[in-house]
Amino acid sequence: MHKQLPLIGAEIFIEPGQTPEEIDVWFKRLHECGMKVTRIRMFENYMHLPDGNWDFTLFDHAFIAAEKYGIQIYANLFPATSFTDVGGFKFPRDQEHLDSIAEYIKECVSHFKEFSSLVGWVPLNEPGSGTLPDEPFTRQKFAEWKEAQPKETFDFQKYEHLDFAEERFLLEYETWFLKWLTEEIKKFDHEGDIHINNHQIFENVAEYNFPEWRKFLSSLGGSAHASWHFGYFSRNQYALAMSANSEILRSGAGDIPWLMTELQGGNNIYSGFEAMCPTPEEITQWLWITLATESKGSIFWCLNPRMSGFEAGEWALLNFQNEPSERMKAASDIANLINENTQLFANAKVVESGISILYTRESLWIEKKLQTGGKFYEGRNIGGVIKSAISWFEAISEMGIQANFKEISEFDFSASDYSNQTIILSHQISIPKIYHQSLKDFVSRGGKLIVDGLTAYYDENAVCMFKNFPFKDLFGSSLQEVKMTGNIFQIELSEPKLSLYAHLWKGTLSLSGAKELSLDNQEVLACKNTFGEGSVFWAPTLIGLAARLNNDYQNLYKLIAFAAGQSIKSVPIRFKNPQPGMLMKIMQSGNSYLAIIINKSEDTSMELINQFNYKTPNVLFANKGGFASKNTVQISMEETMVIQWIV
Amino acid sequence: MHKQLPLIGAEIFIEPGQTPEEIDVWFKRLHECGMKVTRIRMFENYMHLPDGNWDFTLFDHAFIAAEKYGIQIYANLFPATSFTDVGGFKFPRDQEHLDSIAEYIKECVSHFKEFSSLVGWVPLNEPGSGTLPDEPFTRQKFAEWKEAQPKETFDFQKYEHLDFAEERFLLEYETWFLKWLTEEIKKFDHEGDIHINNHQIFENVAEYNFPEWRKFLSSLGGSAHASWHFGYFSRNQYALAMSANSEILRSGAGDIPWLMTELQGGNNIYSGFEAMCPTPEEITQWLWITLATESKGSIFWCLNPRMSGFEAGEWALLNFQNEPSERMKAASDIANLINENTQLFANAKVVESGISILYTRESLWIEKKLQTGGKFYEGRNIGGVIKSAISWFEAISEMGIQANFKEISEFDFSASDYSNQTIILSHQISIPKIYHQSLKDFVSRGGKLIVDGLTAYYDENAVCMFKNFPFKDLFGSSLQEVKMTGNIFQIELSEPKLSLYAHLWKGTLSLSGAKELSLDNQEVLACKNTFGEGSVFWAPTLIGLAARLNNDYQNLYKLIAFAAGQSIKSVPIRFKNPQPGMLMKIMQSGNSYLAIIINKSEDTSMELINQFNYKTPNVLFANKGGFASKNTVQISMEETMVIQWIV
Amino acid sequence: MHKQLPLIGAEIFIEPGQTPEEIDVWFKRLHECGMKVTRIRMFENYMHLPDGNWDFTLFDHAFIAAEKYGIQIYANLFPATSFTDVGGFKFPRDQEHLDSIAEYIKECVSHFKEFSSLVGWVPLNEPGSGTLPDEPFTRQKFAEWKEAQPKETFDFQKYEHLDFAEERFLLEYETWFLKWLTEEIKKFDHEGDIHINNHQIFENVAEYNFPEWRKFLSSLGGSAHASWHFGYFSRNQYALAMSANSEILRSGAGDIPWLMTELQGGNNIYSGFEAMCPTPEEITQWLWITLATESKGSIFWCLNPRMSGFEAGEWALLNFQNEPSERMKAASDIANLINENTQLFANAKVVESGISILYTRESLWIEKKLQTGGKFYEGRNIGGVIKSAISWFEAISEMGIQANFKEISEFDFSASDYSNQTIILSHQISIPKIYHQSLKDFVSRGGKLIVDGLTAYYDENAVCMFKNFPFKDLFGSSLQEVKMTGNIFQIELSEPKLSLYAHLWKGTLSLSGAKELSLDNQEVLACKNTFGEGSVFWAPTLIGLAARLNNDYQNLYKLIAFAAGQSIKSVPIRFKNPQPGMLMKIMQSGNSYLAIIINKSEDTSMELINQFNYKTPNVLFANKGGFASKNTVQISMEETMVIQWIV
Repeated sequence: MHKQLPLIGAEIFIEPGQTPEEIDVWFKRLHECGMKVTRIRMFENYMHLPDGNWDFTLFDHAFIAAEKYGIQIYANLFPATSFTDVGGFKFPRDQEHLDSIAEYIKECVSHFKEFSSLVGWVPLNEPGSGTLPDEPFTRQKFAEWKEAQPKETFDFQKYEHLDFAEERFLLEYETWFLKWLTEEIKKFDHEGDIHINNHQIFENVAEYNFPEWRKFLSSLGGSAHASWHFGYFSRNQYALAMSANSEILRSGAGDIPWLMTELQGGNNIYSGFEAMCPTPEEITQWLWITLATESKGSIFWCLNPRMSGFEAGEWALLNFQNEPSERMKAASDIANLINENTQLFANAKVVESGISILYTRESLWIEKKLQTGGKFYEGRNIGGVIKSAISWFEAISEMGIQANFKEISEFDFSASDYSNQTIILSHQISIPKIYHQSLKDFVSRGGKLIVDGLTAYYDENAVCMFKNFPFKDLFGSSLQEVKMTGNIFQIELSEPKLSLYAHLWKGTLSLSGAKELSLDNQEVLACKNTFGEGSVFWAPTLIGLAARLNNDYQNLYKLIAFAAGQSIKSVPIRFKNPQPGMLMKIMQSGNSYLAIIINKSEDTSMELINQFNYKTPNVLFANKGGFASKNTVQISMEETMVIQWIV
Repeated sequence: MHKQLPLIGAEIFIEPGQTPEEIDVWFKRLHECGMKVTRIRMFENYMHLPDGNWDFTLFDHAFIAAEKYGIQIYANLFPATSFTDVGGFKFPRDQEHLDSIAEYIKECVSHFKEFSSLVGWVPLNEPGSGTLPDEPFTRQKFAEWKEAQPKETFDFQKYEHLDFAEERFLLEYETWFLKWLTEEIKKFDHEGDIHINNHQIFENVAEYNFPEWRKFLSSLGGSAHASWHFGYFSRNQYALAMSANSEILRSGAGDIPWLMTELQGGNNIYSGFEAMCPTPEEITQWLWITLATESKGSIFWCLNPRMSGFEAGEWALLNFQNEPSERMKAASDIANLINENTQLFANAKVVESGISILYTRESLWIEKKLQTGGKFYEGRNIGGVIKSAISWFEAISEMGIQANFKEISEFDFSASDYSNQTIILSHQISIPKIYHQSLKDFVSRGGKLIVDGLTAYYDENAVCMFKNFPFKDLFGSSLQEVKMTGNIFQIELSEPKLSLYAHLWKGTLSLSGAKELSLDNQEVLACKNTFGEGSVFWAPTLIGLAARLNNDYQNLYKLIAFAAGQSIKSVPIRFKNPQPGMLMKIMQSGNSYLAIIINKSEDTSMELINQFNYKTPNVLFANKGGFASKNTVQISMEETMVIQWIV
Repeated sequence: MHKQLPLIGAEIFIEPGQTPEEIDVWFKRLHECGMKVTRIRMFENYMHLPDGNWDFTLFDHAFIAAEKYGIQIYANLFPATSFTDVGGFKFPRDQEHLDSIAEYIKECVSHFKEFSSLVGWVPLNEPGSGTLPDEPFTRQKFAEWKEAQPKETFDFQKYEHLDFAEERFLLEYETWFLKWLTEEIKKFDHEGDIHINNHQIFENVAEYNFPEWRKFLSSLGGSAHASWHFGYFSRNQYALAMSANSEILRSGAGDIPWLMTELQGGNNIYSGFEAMCPTPEEITQWLWITLATESKGSIFWCLNPRMSGFEAGEWALLNFQNEPSERMKAASDIANLINENTQLFANAKVVESGISILYTRESLWIEKKLQTGGKFYEGRNIGGVIKSAISWFEAISEMGIQANFKEISEFDFSASDYSNQTIILSHQISIPKIYHQSLKDFVSRGGKLIVDGLTAYYDENAVCMFKNFPFKDLFGSSLQEVKMTGNIFQIELSEPKLSLYAHLWKGTLSLSGAKELSLDNQEVLACKNTFGEGSVFWAPTLIGLAARLNNDYQNLYKLIAFAAGQSIKSVPIRFKNPQPGMLMKIMQSGNSYLAIIINKSEDTSMELINQFNYKTPNVLFANKGGFASKNTVQISMEETMVIQWIV
C-alpha cells in the first residue's frame, strides 16, 4: 500500500429507507468525480433481524454498486447500539455483549468478504473514549490489570505520588480491544486490510498507543472534522490544524501507511461544536495537506447525508438533488489530477526538515489531573500542553518548513548522528524517566534541543523533578523558580538579540555551565548549553504559546533559526522570509520535487529559497490562477498551489 | 363569560400569621381600587391539621371578606407539599398521593363552594413541567401509555428515527391530570368555573395541548411574569412579549374565554431570573395589552407580599403599610375606566389582521433533542425556533398590525377562502405530515404563505424531508443545500428590491416553477410561487431572526408588505409607516373601534392609515397626556393610549 | 501568649522521599532568616505502617532539627486520608473512623509531646466544610441533634418558615468535633497549645462559631491565601482583604491571641483559583497587616515545596536550590526587625477607632438559601452580604482609620456608654430577634448606627420583618417599598449635601420621627433619627456596595464622617484626606504609637491629622525609602512604612 496511489473518496451512509436505485446513484457519483474509495458503516441494527436472522440485502446493494463502478469499500463494523449513539460504543459492556459482537463479526465478515469491492475493515469507529466507562466488563478488566501490576510498597525513601492507573490502563485496554476485534475479523477474512480512525486528536491523543496498534493494523487513519475537532484553532488556522493532525498520524503510522478516514464534507446544523460549512477552497486545502503529509487517501464524511437522527441532512458533499456540490467538484479536481499522475503521486514522499516537535502522553495526563478550577489561562488549563507544542508547529509551518509532530515514544533515538535534527519540547510538563538518557544521547550525537515552558517540571508520576534535576548536565543549568508574571509579558534575549512574548510564568535559572542568554534584574531567564556534539536552548517560560496568543510569531521565527539553524539549512525549498498565514510542505517522488503551498494570508506573492532554482517549475495545481517563476510565487488568498520541479 | 366585563384584580396571599383584620384590609383595598377579582392559593398545609382534621378558618376569613367587598375568588387548589415548593408539584408521586389529592379536593371544594364569593377553581398552579418526573406514578403511566402505542416494526422501507415518546406522552399526561383534577372538583361543585394558568410560555408551550384543555376548561389562563418568563426579550420588549404571550393564549383558548391569571405586580429581590420592579407605565402597558388581546381579566401576583419563604416581601402591589403603590394606582385607573364603560369593554373583540404566525410543537421538540453543545448561536440553540417566530410578530406589531400567534393545530384550515389571510412559518423546522395537505389547501384557496429559516427541514420524527420534498409543488422549488455563512450576513432580493439580514445558514434553491427573487453567484436564495389562488414566498434563510438580532426590521417591514399585502390592506387602522418600538392593536365593540397604542420608542408623534378618518377620535385613555386628531397621534415615551372611533 | 513576641515563620512540609539532611537545611534556613516558628502536617499516612506499627522517624528528624535551631513547631494533626485529599477531611465518616482518629491522636501526641520544640497542636486543618457531608456519622449526629431541638407545632398565629437546621447544626457540629479533638489531645498532652486555622473566611465565616471555639483554644488562626481565598477582591485590593480577614480573626479571637497560620509564600501553577506569585512587596504588606491587627505571628505556606501530588513544586519561599527567594528575604527583614524590638512588638496593641462593621451569620445563610439563579448582580447573588460590609471597611481603611469587622454576637453590647462608637450594618439582610434590644441599647447609650442596603429585611428564619417593623422606634421610620432601579444609579442626600451611588434597589421610607435626608419625587430615601443619646442613619439602598462597584468612595467618605463623626475624631492619627488605595492602622505599645501604612496607589505623598505632631516621628520600617516629617509622609507605590512616635 505504500506504493499505492492516494485515493480520494467519501463515505456512503447506508440506512433503511434508501432504495437500490439511490444507492447506485451515489456510487455512480463517486465514479464520475474520479473517486475510488468509500467507507460504509455496517450497522448490525440493519442486518440482524428482530427474529435473530441476518439479512444483508441493504448493504449488498452498496457492495454490488461498488463493484459496478470500481469503488473500494472500507467496511466499518458497527455492532448493535441505540439509534442515538452517534459514534458507537467504545468498549463491551459485559461478556454477553462481547460474545454478541463476536457473533456479529462472524456473520458480517463472512458475508461481505466475498465482494471484490471490499478492501478491508475498520473494526471500531473512533476508539477514543476520554474516560473509562463504568461498566462491568471494563471494571473487571481494570481489576485484573491492577492485580497484575507490580505492587508499590511504602518506602520512606520514595515520594508517594498521584495514581495514573486509569490512564495507563485505558492505553492498554483500548489497544487490547482493537486487537481482539482484529483477531475476530481475521478468523473469517485473512486478506482484508485492517484500518482504524482515531479522532479528536488534540484532546484524545494521550490515549492512543499508535506504535502498538501498528502491529496489527494495515493502515492508520483519523477523523479530522473542523466542526468537532479543531476547537483549539480559529477557522483561519484549520489548514494548519489539518497539517498538525496529519503529521501526528504520519508519525503514529510509522512504517505502515495512513489515510484520513473522515474529513468534513458539508454543512452542519445542530451537530458539531462549531457550526460551519467548508468552502471549496477549504476542501482543496485539506485534501492537499493530507496528501502532502503522505496520506494514502482521504474519505469525506459524507457523500450523501443521513436522513434521520442526529446529523440528518447534514455534512454531505452531494446536495439534496444528489448532484455534486461545489465542494464535491473541488475534491473531484484533485482526484482527477491524481488519477492522471499515478506514478508521481503513488511514490511521493515527505521531505522531512529534521525538526521534530515531541509531546508526551504523561504531560497531558498530568495537566488534566492537576486542574483545580478557577480563572482560565490558556497555558494552565487543559489544552496548554498541546497548544504550546502546536505554537511551534505553526511558526515553523509559516517559515515554509515541514515539522514532525510525534509522541516521544515514536521518535527514533537509536541513530548515531543527529547533526541535522532538532527536537522541540514545548511545555511538555512531564518527561518520563525512560527518556532521560535518550534525550542526552540525542544531543550528545549532534542534535539540537529547544525547550520552553514548564517542560520537565514533573516525572511520569507528577513528582517534581527540579530538586534533583536529571537534566542539569544536559541543560547546563537548573531551575530556580517559576513565578506567575502575567498573561502576556516580554523577555529579552541577548543572543539572538530580540524580545519574546511570554505567558504566565517567568522561569529563572541557576547556571552550571550553560551560557546565559537573557538576564533580567539579576535573574537568568534563558540559556544555551553545548553538550557533546549538540546543544540545548532552554527558556523555562511559555514563549511559544505566548506568541500564539499574541498572534505574532515574528521573533519566534528568529529564535528557531538561531536554535535549529542546521535543520533548516538542510531543507531543499523554504520561504525566503516567514509568511504569516501561509504554509508549505515539500514532497519528493522520483526526480520530482513538489511544493504544496496554501495561502491563508492577504499577501499574494512570496519568494522561496530554493535549491532547484536552476530549473523552471511547473504549476501542477492552482485553484485561483497562481503561478510560479524560479524563486517567486504569485498566489491568491485562500489559494492552494502545487509546484513541481523535475531535477 | 364571553360577554362579561374584563376584571382587574390581584392575588391575595393567605398564610398563617395573618389576622382577620389584615385580610379584611386587603379585600377592602381591592374594592377601593375598583378591582373585582382575586385568586387565592388554597394551601392544604394550612387546612389539614396534623391530627387529620380540617380547619378552614384562615381561608374562611378571606371568603367572608370577599363577600363583604364584592370580590370574586378563583380558588387555586394547592395540595400538601413542602414549604420550599414554590410553584407546587405537577404530577402525583404515587397512587397514595393521588388518593390524598382526591381527599383534599373533596374537603376543600365541598367547603368553599358554599361561598358566593367563589367564582371557580384553578385545579393546578402552572402545570408546565419541562420534563417527566422520575417518580413511580409517572413511570407507570408512561409504561402503560407506551404499551398502548402502535408498535413500529423494522422495515427496510422506512427510516429509523429518534424517539419523541416522552414529549408526546407528556402532552397527553398533562392533559389527563388536569382533566382528572377537574372531574374530582366537579364531583362536589358542578357550577364553579375551571381555569388553568400555564406559564413560561415561550419555553414550555410545546407541552400544552390547549385544544384538548378547552374541552373541560371554562377559561384558559396564563402566568406572564417579566422576571421569570420573558428571558427571550429585553426590558424594552416586555410589552411585545406580553402581546405575543396574550395572542398565544387567545389562540389556545379558541372558543372559550381567557384571562391573564398572573402578572408581576411588584419588586422581586432574590426570586425571579431577572431582578426588576415594574414601573406604573409598564403595569399600564401590560394591562392594556391583555385587554387588547380580548382577555376577560388580569390578576396581579400579588396584592400583599407573602411574609415568609421564597418571595418573602416581594412582588406586591401594596406597600408595607398596606397602602396602594404607584403601580396599584395605575392598575386602579384602568379598572375604574372599565367599570365606567361596561358595555364598551364587555363586548370588545379583537379585529384580526388575517396574519397568523404558526409554530409547531415538533419544531421545539426537535430543536431541543438535536442540541450537541458547542458554540452558542441564537438560531441553532434552544429558543431559535420560537425566537424566529417572535421576530415576525415584532415586525408586524411595529407596523401597527395585530398578528395571531398559533400552534399549527389551532389554525382553522377548513375555510373556503383565505384570500385575506397570511401564514408565516419562520424557522419551524418540523412540519408534521398531517399538515402538509392543510397548508396546500390554505394556499390554493387564496392564502399567502411566508416561509423562512429551516422551516420544513424535518418531519415530526426529525427525518429530513428534503430528499423527497413534499412541498415541491406548493413552493415551486426545493432545497439544494443550506450552508453556514456567518452570524449576520446579507442577501439581496430583486423583488421587492432590498437587502435582508440573514443569520447562520444560506439556503439555496432548485426551482421547479417558482419565480426567482434572489440570485447570488448562480444560486437562488429566495423565490415566490403561485399555487392555486394563493402564493408562497420562500427564503430558506433566517431573515426574521437576523433582523431581530440586528435590531433593525426596516426591510422586513417591506418584505411583509410585499408578501402579505392583501392581509394588511384589509386592516381598518394601521401605522402609516412602521414605528420601531411602538405597537398597536385594534378592537371593535358595537359601533366603536378602539386602537390601543403603546410607545416604547423615543418618537412622540405618528400618523395612521385609518378607514374612519372622517370621524374625530376620542381619547379614552392616555396616561401621559397623549392626544389624537384624525390621522395623527401625539404620544409620549412609555405612554399607553386608547383611542375610540364611533362609526 | 498575649505578651509574646509575634513570630514569623513558614510551614515545613514533611513527606517521604526527604532526607534528614534536607530537613536540617530547612530549619537552618528559618533560623538564618530570623524565623522562629514552623507548622508541620503530621501525616498519619507516614507514621502508621501497613503492618499497624508506628514509625515516627521521618517527623522526628524535623523535631530534632527544630530543637537544634530553636524553632517552635505547631503540629497539625492529619489523620489517615487519601493522597489526593489536599486539605484533609472535616468530619469522621463513621464510629470506626472516629475511633481510628482517637488512636492516631494517642500515638502521635504521646510521642511528640516529648519534644521541647513542640509548642502546640492544630487539631484539624481548615475545618470549614461548606456543606454537611452525606456520611453515616454526620447523618446520625444530625438526626440526634434534630431530635433534641424544640418542636415547632402548627400555629395559625405564626408564619411557617424556611428551615435552617443544616446551617445551625453545622455551626454546632463543627464546634463539637474541634472540641472532641482537643479533648483527645489533652488526654495525652496537658500543656501544648491548641490552635485552629479557619479558611476561605469571606465565604465560610457563617459556619465558624468563634466565641464557642475560644473556650477550648489557646489561640485562633486562619489561612489567608490570595490565590484561594480572595476571590471577592482584585489583586490591588489583596492588602485590604488581608486587613479585613485579620480583623475578623481578631474579633473572633476575643480574649485569646490569634495568629495567621497560613499565608501564601510562593508561586502556584495548577493549584489555586487564581494563578499568582506574591511579590516581595506583597509579602511585606501582608506580614505588616497581620502584625498591625495584633496577630502573634504569621506562618507562610510553605518554606519548601512539597515534591509530589497537588501543589508539587508550588507555593514555596525557598527556591529549588533551597536558597531564600526574594520573598523570603522580605519576610526575613521584618522578622529581624521584630527580634530587635522585642518590647515594642510584644506589647503592641491595636488602637481601635470605635467603628465596628457587623455582619450576621443568618444574613449569609438566607442570602444563599434564597438564590434562584438568573442574571448575576453583585448585591443579589451569593457574596452580596459580605461584599457590602467589605465596602464600608474599604472606605474607612482609605480614610486611614481602623475598623472592627465582627459577627454581631462578638460585639460587646454590655457597655454603658457608646458615645465614641459606631456600628455599621450594611446589607445585613437578617437581624435575629435576640439582637433587637441590643441594638436599641447601643444607640440609646450614645452609639451611632449606620444602616444601608436591605438590612433587617428578614428575621433569623427569613420571615420579612417590615410588616411590623421592630426597629420603627429606633430608626424613626419604616420601609415602604424597595424597587429594583438599576445596576448603578444615584441618590441625592440633602444633609450632608452629596450624591451617593446606589445599586439595585431603591428603598423608600415612611417616617415616624426621623429626619428626612433625601427626597426623591415625593419619596424619602434616607433619614436620620435621634434615639436616646445616639442616632441612626438609614438608607435602605446599597450605597456601600455601589461605591465599591464604581470604584469611587469619595462621597461615602463624607457620609461616614457625617454619620460617625465622633468615632473618627477620637482616633489619634488618621489621613488628613482619604487616600484611595492606601491604608493605615495604628498600634500602641507603652509610650510608643506605631502607624503602619501601605500604599497601593500612585500617590506618593500624604498628610496626616496627628495628635502627636509635636513629636518628630521615627521611621521604623520602609522598604522603598519612604520618610516622614511631622504630618507628612513620602511613600512610594507598593511601599509599606511603619512610623513610630514616642510620646
